[in-house]
Amino acid sequence: MTNPDTADSATPTLQVIPLGGMGEIGKNIFAYRYGDEIMVVDGGLAFPKAHQMGIDLIVPRIDYLLEHQHLIKGWVLTHGHEDHIGGLPYILPRLPRVPVYSAGLTLGLVREKLTEFGIKDGEVDLREVQPGDKVRIGQHFHVEFVRMTHSIPDNMGYILTTPVGRVVHTGDFKLDEEPADGKTSDLARLEQAGKEGVLLLISDSTNAERPGHTPSEAEIARNLEGVIAGCRGRVFLTTFASNVHRIQNVLHIAHRQGRRVVMEGRSMLKYAQVAQGLGYMEAPDPFLTSDDVGELQDQQILFVCTGSQGQPMAVLGRLAFGTHAKIALRRGDTVILSSNPIPGNEDAVNLIVNRLYEIGVDVIYPPNPRIHASGHASQEELATVLNLTRPKFFLPWHGEPRHQINHAKLAQTLPRPPKRTLIAKNGDIVSLGGDEFRVSGTVPAGGVYVDGLGVGDVGDEVLLDRVNLSQEGLIIMNAVLHPTPHVEIVTRGFVRPNRELDFQIKRVALEVVEQGVREKKRLEDVRDDMYGAVRRFVRKATGRNPILIPMIVD
Amino acid sequence: MTNPDTADSATPTLQVIPLGGMGEIGKNIFAYRYGDEIMVVDGGLAFPKAHQMGIDLIVPRIDYLLEHQHLIKGWVLTHGHEDHIGGLPYILPRLPRVPVYSAGLTLGLVREKLTEFGIKDGEVDLREVQPGDKVRIGQHFHVEFVRMTHSIPDNMGYILTTPVGRVVHTGDFKLDEEPADGKTSDLARLEQAGKEGVLLLISDSTNAERPGHTPSEAEIARNLEGVIAGCRGRVFLTTFASNVHRIQNVLHIAHRQGRRVVMEGRSMLKYAQVAQGLGYMEAPDPFLTSDDVGELQDQQILFVCTGSQGQPMAVLGRLAFGTHAKIALRRGDTVILSSNPIPGNEDAVNLIVNRLYEIGVDVIYPPNPRIHASGHASQEELATVLNLTRPKFFLPWHGEPRHQINHAKLAQTLPRPPKRTLIAKNGDIVSLGGDEFRVSGTVPAGGVYVDGLGVGDVGDEVLLDRVNLSQEGLIIMNAVLHPTPHVEIVTRGFVRPNRELDFQIKRVALEVVEQGVREKKRLEDVRDDMYGAVRRFVRKATGRNPILIPMIVD
Repeated sequence: MTNPDTADSATPTLQVIPLGGMGEIGKNIFAYRYGDEIMVVDGGLAFPKAHQMGIDLIVPRIDYLLEHQHLIKGWVLTHGHEDHIGGLPYILPRLPRVPVYSAGLTLGLVREKLTEFGIKDGEVDLREVQPGDKVRIGQHFHVEFVRMTHSIPDNMGYILTTPVGRVVHTGDFKLDEEPADGKTSDLARLEQAGKEGVLLLISDSTNAERPGHTPSEAEIARNLEGVIAGCRGRVFLTTFASNVHRIQNVLHIAHRQGRRVVMEGRSMLKYAQVAQGLGYMEAPDPFLTSDDVGELQDQQILFVCTGSQGQPMAVLGRLAFGTHAKIALRRGDTVILSSNPIPGNEDAVNLIVNRLYEIGVDVIYPPNPRIHASGHASQEELATVLNLTRPKFFLPWHGEPRHQINHAKLAQTLPRPPKRTLIAKNGDIVSLGGDEFRVSGTVPAGGVYVDGLGVGDVGDEVLLDRVNLSQEGLIIMNAVLHPTPHVEIVTRGFVRPNRELDFQIKRVALEVVEQGVREKKRLEDVRDDMYGAVRRFVRKATGRNPILIPMIVD
Repeated sequence: MTNPDTADSATPTLQVIPLGGMGEIGKNIFAYRYGDEIMVVDGGLAFPKAHQMGIDLIVPRIDYLLEHQHLIKGWVLTHGHEDHIGGLPYILPRLPRVPVYSAGLTLGLVREKLTEFGIKDGEVDLREVQPGDKVRIGQHFHVEFVRMTHSIPDNMGYILTTPVGRVVHTGDFKLDEEPADGKTSDLARLEQAGKEGVLLLISDSTNAERPGHTPSEAEIARNLEGVIAGCRGRVFLTTFASNVHRIQNVLHIAHRQGRRVVMEGRSMLKYAQVAQGLGYMEAPDPFLTSDDVGELQDQQILFVCTGSQGQPMAVLGRLAFGTHAKIALRRGDTVILSSNPIPGNEDAVNLIVNRLYEIGVDVIYPPNPRIHASGHASQEELATVLNLTRPKFFLPWHGEPRHQINHAKLAQTLPRPPKRTLIAKNGDIVSLGGDEFRVSGTVPAGGVYVDGLGVGDVGDEVLLDRVNLSQEGLIIMNAVLHPTPHVEIVTRGFVRPNRELDFQIKRVALEVVEQGVREKKRLEDVRDDMYGAVRRFVRKATGRNPILIPMIVD
């Protein structure tokens, strides 16, 4: 291999290979490859869309990593959100044990997750780093971690020095000037990198369509403090369980206002436990349980609950539908949703909000008052990072095409726009070095569906069946040929029990079967005839196309 | 019956009976009843929610109207939107022929709709009125129509004078100071009614959570004019086909900018045809077809398309997915979405927007720039109507509980709040007169599902089957007992074809069947045993609960 310091056209390029999170929001994972070395970043999951029926979650396809597993030298995790670490239990056990670097809270959450999956500590080589730390991965990757604020503590981007030049990856970020832990983004380090020269910037595109600056957690906390101060009864507050900053601020507010806090819901308790255990959350008063609050007055109680996304089985859902075993909402209570629905969850959240109104509790949610802020940078912040780092090349990441392209357009309006911007997709091999910056090939990429215990045994053809079944249901025709031809009908999801219609379908099927027997047709032909005759009859009689399943017993 | 002019406690009350549109947005219809007379308002449809799988649309249950059909004296239609007139083809033919009053465009759209359903003109007694007209319905209902602005021309509220007092119903409205046809809401008439005394106000709650004032169509038109002026290539604009005001403004903009207009899509053509035919839309230049534009330059063309809600088969959907027979999008084109997704359609619209970005066209949509406005009043406008009419009683209507309750709260903050406000539900009998204003009973209400040719043959239990089928699919076990026990397995929507799993399921089922035959069990017991054994096995082996359908042939 040539000496990277005297790079010429024969020098190997640096490849950036997104396997998830490029052109989508979710299941973030990508690989850097230089020569015979690979370094991987994150390993997230995605939640299914409405048409992906029955799917629990989606993890990235890692064919590329499996095929080149002997080249993997190390792993970097930017932060502890599910879309960055939730896929690791499905990914890490299938690959060689290499060092996995991240900050304390992120590793705490990863450990918790691996334990749930029965993966032992020794099977994974987790190594804690701090922002500012530098590690070498393989021979060629020098990683310097950079603190960036986000909606979870210990979030980091990094500056990656490689033989072809410097890459700045923001990770998920916003530029919060008043984060709950007082630790702001290390813009000085980004600026310095910009002065030293940045070959490539990979930056968070989630909110590239939003003008202005994403509000600080401190502003949200001030607004929440005002709202809670106005509540005379019990307060039930929900937010993302991973938003340790937000919850920390709520704990302080509760303390100042003389309210004791009850944490309700499995994930709320889990995050609080991990964050407290590692020193990322401080409870001014010990948490109570719902059994303990009997002696307190209503205005001395604040519940922090799961269910901000309208999940019917989470705490807020059970409260709204009156199915919580221990707590019943009543007039005088206030429910505060310090969250927005994630796209796809709007209907579920709306249903719960309406139920809460019907119960007669006060319901308070954004945007009026402003009691939620995104964890992702808006246009002004994106411009700041582009201006500070002044990259030669730019890869808008962590977004759908609309977000990537608007991020690219924003970059073009700045005083020193990147020389070239690529809108990449999962599976693209983005090659760079010198003046080269292009998609030079592709690798397999996409999603693996996780459904129950099954990982990958449900594919798109199975989902298509589920969609079809959901639209008009199905009719099973079970024909017995001997001694006397006879047809049984079973339907599901078709129409209400309807003897007349069943009778007619049976008659249509039986006629064809009897004819087939008389003419001594082959079994498959009788089956196909029955299928066709019933299909035509049902379409004409009902205007519908249920799935038909013909079965024949000779 | 007592003389209504000398009303005392024995006087019959006026009943307001919502059968749709109360506590929901959609399928608006309600009845007034006084003594032995009923007057009906509107007859709309609703679109299904995500869990109402395969349903085409939902029409209101009208048991109450069917039961009391001999009392129905007349009908009033406020405007021509689907959620106010779309149910009429399912409703009117089942009830006696009575006068149906509305304005010209609304009746034009109703006629079009009835014709589509093969309902002849003579079967329905449509009577055209103008805002300001007064009609008597039965002996007791005196209706004076009042112009109110909305996102479709010829929209009206009305003042209903009854023996117990005056009711003001706003209909759907916003207070647009610059509507496309220059005809503003008749606030003077509302104010006069307020001075004369209003017993009850029924007002549009849709946007009761929005502060401020809904933008005028004129502001939207100015913003659209600026956007279109900046386009160098072809323009494809989509909006709601029923938004005749918006489309009228677009026709003027196109004319001023030297662009010829092509209307694309069935509903766009239908609305344009009806509106033009009745004089509600004026095309400065004749419309072209997509075949005519070949000789024009790109900057001389503007397509007005269906598909603003992400419908894959509408024009914009086909353009985005490259399946339009005649037109292909290309770089240099601009697609303008002058619309917002209706709740539930966010994902479908997002998919299309992303596809458009990928094609490389410019895509422009609200909120930046502001090129769409709601047709419903925001808080300041709602306050204006409450202040002008000064009702004794208030019924927030056309909204989910969250909208109704926030509308009620808004009313309480005004200088002269209503004496009483009710949050009613579909099926409530709201009785009023003198000092009475209460829910005095209920009637059957709810939705009838329309699916294919079937009206009402799909109920909630069928939908539950569809939901279950969509989650994990199904397994059919067909057991033949003689001469030798034998089991066939068919699955749909379960997992990828998996011989090993099929084999195991068959084995589990066959063991139980063989045992049943040996022990000479009853057929039903063998079937139940097979069901239970396969249920347990599948749950353990796959973590799933598909629908199981056991069939037995003796």
